[in-house]
Amino acid sequence: MSAELPPVRYAGRPDAVRAALDGRTLLVSTPSNIRWLTGFGGTLGWVVVAPHRVTLVTDGRYEERATADLARAGVDADVVAARTRPALRELLVATAGTSGTVLAESAHLSHASWTDFAKDLSLGPDEGTITGLRRVKDEGELARIGRAAEIADAALGEVTPMLGEGPTERDVRDELDQRMRRLGADGLSYEPIVASGPELAARPHHETSRRPIVEGDTVIIDVGALVDGYHSDMTRTYVVGEPTDEQLELYALVRTAQQAGLDAVAPGVAGQDLDAACRRVVEEAGYGDWFVHGTGHGVGLDIHEAPFAAKAGTEDVLVEGDVVTVEPGLYRDGFGGIRIEDLVTVTPTGCRRFTHLPKDSPCLPSRPTT
Amino acid sequence: MSAELPPVRYAGRPDAVRAALDGRTLLVSTPSNIRWLTGFGGTLGWVVVAPHRVTLVTDGRYEERATADLARAGVDADVVAARTRPALRELLVATAGTSGTVLAESAHLSHASWTDFAKDLSLGPDEGTITGLRRVKDEGELARIGRAAEIADAALGEVTPMLGEGPTERDVRDELDQRMRRLGADGLSYEPIVASGPELAARPHHETSRRPIVEGDTVIIDVGALVDGYHSDMTRTYVVGEPTDEQLELYALVRTAQQAGLDAVAPGVAGQDLDAACRRVVEEAGYGDWFVHGTGHGVGLDIHEAPFAAKAGTEDVLVEGDVVTVEPGLYRDGFGGIRIEDLVTVTPTGCRRFTHLPKDSPCLPSRPTT
Repeated sequence: MSAELPPVRYAGRPDAVRAALDGRTLLVSTPSNIRWLTGFGGTLGWVVVAPHRVTLVTDGRYEERATADLARAGVDADVVAARTRPALRELLVATAGTSGTVLAESAHLSHASWTDFAKDLSLGPDEGTITGLRRVKDEGELARIGRAAEIADAALGEVTPMLGEGPTERDVRDELDQRMRRLGADGLSYEPIVASGPELAARPHHETSRRPIVEGDTVIIDVGALVDGYHSDMTRTYVVGEPTDEQLELYALVRTAQQAGLDAVAPGVAGQDLDAACRRVVEEAGYGDWFVHGTGHGVGLDIHEAPFAAKAGTEDVLVEGDVVTVEPGLYRDGFGGIRIEDLVTVTPTGCRRFTHLPKDSPCLPSRPTT
Repeated sequence: MSAELPPVRYAGRPDAVRAALDGRTLLVSTPSNIRWLTGFGGTLGWVVVAPHRVTLVTDGRYEERATADLARAGVDADVVAARTRPALRELLVATAGTSGTVLAESAHLSHASWTDFAKDLSLGPDEGTITGLRRVKDEGELARIGRAAEIADAALGEVTPMLGEGPTERDVRDELDQRMRRLGADGLSYEPIVASGPELAARPHHETSRRPIVEGDTVIIDVGALVDGYHSDMTRTYVVGEPTDEQLELYALVRTAQQAGLDAVAPGVAGQDLDAACRRVVEEAGYGDWFVHGTGHGVGLDIHEAPFAAKAGTEDVLVEGDVVTVEPGLYRDGFGGIRIEDLVTVTPTGCRRFTHLPKDSPCLPSRPTT
């Protein structure tokens, strides 16, 4: 999995942001927005996008790396650094200083920082300028997300046979971690979730434990890899041993709901409608109460980003180039849980899947005999 | 390393916070503050500390886990859950609703959330109530940090001999990861930093790369484990092969500066003075420009927390029970870098170290012959 990936097109991004700002200045504080804009992968930095100049402001520990990251990305921006917090603040105020309003990312900037900067700058809330531009992924970004999904697919496929051999949840987690890195991942998209049995699999955001996996368990495995800053996300559910009728029936229900979700993905579809496509199947079968989370979320430089697909609280509408998960699930204490999740990108006529591990049955594949 | 640890004393914390609030209500949004207060380890939740009631507000995905975490911690609090973002907001406003001011954690809450809640609540900035209470660690917390430090110590000790065998930085990172988990860590305190050679070791926050480690390199390894939510943090630097005179001289300088820092730690000492104790040694030798970061930071449920020891931007004064790093370093492109870091807790008369891996020489230990 070491084939060359097409480049991410960073170079045009500062101009795209400037065009959206229409002469105003933007103070960028969200790390993933800074990475998208400049290629800088460190965690401490700010970018000031002014009408005629883009400046990355960071501290002494990151100066070398910032300069190298920007050069590699081909981004034309200045790097300036300070060594103490007060000096960093002064540098930032001086760089952003202007007679007009400075937009700041109010969804990320803390209220305390906002109040502090507002002493010296005329701040206004930025309404997700970069978040909006980031939604549509370019060819290089899709290739990285695809590679990350391929790695997670392969690692999970290699690991599933061990589920029948009595490992703990953590053993499975550690094995996934090592295999993804060996397959070329730069890291984990998030700590893999391995949730097993009647209580723990009933928790959609379970923290992987030392519980041994035993016959009769439903086992939810939620895993993703990181490639060059880009995430993947997928979930499969297995039953250890011979599934019961109830396990098979509910698995088939989630599978049907998930397919309904995949079939619903297309440009122009509201996130609420994508959620409804999955939820309707589950509700009609009488299990609406068991589906305790939304259907999906965008994935890119953040593991959770726009667009969101949920029952309420989102007005997002899918567009071509979005990358989203489709992940209905059922959970009940005493039963356990079932979730199936694929990662897709929105195409002109529907979607293209990044994750391909089989999902038609919850039965464990047997270990290859080779 | 599986001996029982003394319990963390969660049960008295809500009352301690209430006493500090003196009748006011606090809306807690910082995940590590929520964990400190209630034992809840999930990432999506809020806690409302009102004069007569403590309530954890979370979403449906976390409800089971929150209830279990609170019961295990022995914390007397209600758990309420909502399934959509708008419903969660309404529930939170109803729970915090009061005729008086509701304090909110302005250093964590985004300006956008603050502005949104301020439509329905009379918000005021909380000045670090919980952050202040969290600084002094109880016996159970010190034991967890100590265990985490012991695990990192052991893993790094096991891994150093491989540095002479031509691994890549990532190979070393992966090996540390696996060994810490095998030694009983619940996870990583942070992605281990392995920074090698004349350019990469010169970057204090280098992202571990695929560069092969070669003879002549300085190699900085910064590593910590996670035990029950508590972090450790340590750094050692090695030279591969026979060190040059310059490498030995600068290593000795950092070692002296670090000892000066350790000797300076005591209750009542300002973070700025702890920093000055290290920095003076380096400056007097003419290398002040090479020391591009602060001397230390607190460690606990967060990897970076109060108290901070730096040249400027901190007014913190050490108190008994603080846990802090002492980590001077020198960096120069073309030379590489050297950093030595120990983790200590402040005692009545000085400090007690948690990290014990030898640090008197940058030479690699030979591989045990057994």
